[in-house]
Amino acid sequence: MSGQAGRLIGVGLGPGDPDLLTLRAARLIGGARVIAYPALAGGDSFARSIVAELIPDGCREIVMDVPMTVERGPAQAAYDRGAREISAALETGADVICLCEGDPFFYGSFMYLHARLADRFTVEVVPGVTSLSACAARAGLPLVARNQQLTVLPGPLPAADLRDRIGRAEAFAIMKVGRHLGKIRAVLAEVGLLERAVYIARVGLPDEHVCALADAPDRAPYFSMVLVGQEEDPWL
Amino acid sequence: MSGQAGRLIGVGLGPGDPDLLTLRAARLIGGARVIAYPALAGGDSFARSIVAELIPDGCREIVMDVPMTVERGPAQAAYDRGAREISAALETGADVICLCEGDPFFYGSFMYLHARLADRFTVEVVPGVTSLSACAARAGLPLVARNQQLTVLPGPLPAADLRDRIGRAEAFAIMKVGRHLGKIRAVLAEVGLLERAVYIARVGLPDEHVCALADAPDRAPYFSMVLVGQEEDPWL
Repeated sequence: MSGQAGRLIGVGLGPGDPDLLTLRAARLIGGARVIAYPALAGGDSFARSIVAELIPDGCREIVMDVPMTVERGPAQAAYDRGAREISAALETGADVICLCEGDPFFYGSFMYLHARLADRFTVEVVPGVTSLSACAARAGLPLVARNQQLTVLPGPLPAADLRDRIGRAEAFAIMKVGRHLGKIRAVLAEVGLLERAVYIARVGLPDEHVCALADAPDRAPYFSMVLVGQEEDPWL
Repeated sequence: MSGQAGRLIGVGLGPGDPDLLTLRAARLIGGARVIAYPALAGGDSFARSIVAELIPDGCREIVMDVPMTVERGPAQAAYDRGAREISAALETGADVICLCEGDPFFYGSFMYLHARLADRFTVEVVPGVTSLSACAARAGLPLVARNQQLTVLPGPLPAADLRDRIGRAEAFAIMKVGRHLGKIRAVLAEVGLLERAVYIARVGLPDEHVCALADAPDRAPYFSMVLVGQEEDPWL
């Protein structure tokens, strides 16, 4: 490679409301020459939609069409192709801004690119507001204070694992609820926590939905979460 | 109360770098008539220092001098006084913007005001970038992907509790390391995780320090953290 390679910049966009972008993220995207982002194969990119207003004219866009399949092979192949295209752009000296919903290192799609490119290029990560913080804010639900502990669990875990982890947690969040809603509700009912659990779907978007988990609809979108906050803390 | 009371708005400021404010936070602070924030008794307010450039002329400032004592009584009394002053301002119809480092509901000082005022006033919370996300970004350390779990632990927990929790965690963060550094290092050495642990102090500030926990200085500031990320994920 001749000359200096560009930087790979993973930019967290926050949970979806453009108003929750950081100042740094907005500035980087507004000045971008090359951006890259995942899209549902054949569909839209949620990440791009968050910042559509900020993308400058003439900015090059590298789209990674990621199929939502149970097998990981097709998604990995999509990120392999994306990493090759990004790598070629970096080698011309251009920085590449990778758009990432939420926070890049908290269940973020950027981790797929980081795993493929971090050993060869300078990487920067701009942290973003997580959907976890946004959901707690919208639900008016304090998560953890003082010396309390927080456990973050993915909804696809088997019921026995969820039950085991929840039984020892003080406050917890279950991410990626989606089609696992029924299982999660059953586990929380079993351990006596259904009354304290809050359901939040598509936080900060026009069709946001916040309610008690007991009253949640039977079908949840992928971007949905269940929160159980701390018990009341007499020290506050 | 005559007329409509103002809103209590808890605004997350992110970990300390003003560039990591959200657009919404910056706008709210820039237009504030009344702000409130904690300060170390007799000292500065870290929260105020993050946004000092944005506070408009003529803005009223309610300062809560919070003593750092082991007993909770003096701090609680400071928040009681602050809540009374904020409540009087809200009753005049003014919104009160409460500045909060990090994210208000993730170990945030705003929770003290929320506990005192949320039953009487309309509350809004603007989520912020957590120090957890910022530390992972600066350390270049992916936290959790796919179906992995994350445990967040406060450093002041007794060694036996830390050991117990860590033994079952996949990825974890230990917050508020400060004077607990020696204990934390010993626990991680004991469970064989010292090699994977990263130490980050005062993230995003001019005197930021990132290194292997094994190489960390013996005295850590209050705003310091230890991270142990996921093991390499072959699915990425």
